[in-house]
Amino acid sequence: MHKTRVRVVEDALDANNTIARANRADFDAAGLRVVNLMSAPGAGKTTLLERLLAHGLGGMRVGVLEGDVRGSFDADRLSALHVPVTQLNTDPGFGGECHLDANMVRSAIPALPLDEIDLLVIENVGNLVCPAEFRVGEDARAMLSSVTEGEDKPLKYPLMFRACELVILNKIDLLPHLDFDVDRFLANLDQVHPGVERMLVSARTGEGLDRVGDWLAREPARV
Amino acid sequence: MHKTRVRVVEDALDANNTIARANRADFDAAGLRVVNLMSAPGAGKTTLLERLLAHGLGGMRVGVLEGDVRGSFDADRLSALHVPVTQLNTDPGFGGECHLDANMVRSAIPALPLDEIDLLVIENVGNLVCPAEFRVGEDARAMLSSVTEGEDKPLKYPLMFRACELVILNKIDLLPHLDFDVDRFLANLDQVHPGVERMLVSARTGEGLDRVGDWLAREPARV
Repeated sequence: MHKTRVRVVEDALDANNTIARANRADFDAAGLRVVNLMSAPGAGKTTLLERLLAHGLGGMRVGVLEGDVRGSFDADRLSALHVPVTQLNTDPGFGGECHLDANMVRSAIPALPLDEIDLLVIENVGNLVCPAEFRVGEDARAMLSSVTEGEDKPLKYPLMFRACELVILNKIDLLPHLDFDVDRFLANLDQVHPGVERMLVSARTGEGLDRVGDWLAREPARV
Repeated sequence: MHKTRVRVVEDALDANNTIARANRADFDAAGLRVVNLMSAPGAGKTTLLERLLAHGLGGMRVGVLEGDVRGSFDADRLSALHVPVTQLNTDPGFGGECHLDANMVRSAIPALPLDEIDLLVIENVGNLVCPAEFRVGEDARAMLSSVTEGEDKPLKYPLMFRACELVILNKIDLLPHLDFDVDRFLANLDQVHPGVERMLVSARTGEGLDRVGDWLAREPARV
């Protein structure tokens, strides 16, 4: 039974990848860099984007695709910064999915102002498991881990930490008040994804965000 | 297509509920209270259990079923407290599932010392979406939300906050260092699950844990 289930999962991922390639072709045709931003709930994806967008990204025109199970709370926060934000809810149409997949992103493409932006940030549903399994047509993937979540997360959710080109360790302003050991976290990270690019930041104070902004605005490195 | 997909999801949930009832019958026959403990990754489920088990639960004999995608890091932490811990990984056999379901729990029952414990705590996979959809045969469900995750979480993950009999707000020792507004969180909680039992705790300092221990040890309230 397990073998059948594994095959069904593999077929679903194959189908997803086919649609992801179609999305990617559309994004490429529009000359767009696309970043898939992932994390656990509450790790600070939206706050990070708020800070970066308020600061500007070297003149780049940025759009955001907001993935949520329900509601548009994050989209409302980001719209206040006068960037185009498109909401994608996984609840009504898709049955309460815990991640975005390529087909959901495809359904949102007609609503995206592809010709008016240079960078599209896709803020995925807060979850450290399934978002890592579904490519959506992005050029690169970044994930946030917050110091309040503990040093063990790379070992417990290895696929997520392996499936990205950048790991952002957020909320470092709280380090003085926690037992979090940064070196142990980085050693755990290197155990599952040796040498992956990593940045220590505080979206709240702004520390380290310049480097994240540079990375986001980087020329598409086709992965 | 969506209608078909919704029906497939409903059928899967029906099948899950049938198995959950079988689990529940087995747990009942053994005179066991079973609590399903859920949260986002890093909200503090294991630390909470460590503190409670080290303190003892009024003489109750406790066992833990540890749900993780991979590894046995939490099980190892809890085993150090000399309670029976059974590990359930969703990765190798189940294809990297982001939640426990009734069938996975059923497969673990033969490994559980049902006759030697009074309370079984099932520590679910860290995720605020899918665990809420799958009953596993529990008497009651509790979820942890950490103050570092933000006040908006009940509104963004309403099913999770609705699908439990107790909401534990953890890490309140960090409140002086955050912009978190407890009243706003509780108002958001009441919006999705009016009047649900709630407890403010710090698993790190031990504040408020007595009440959680009392709740866990409570006579089975058949839900």
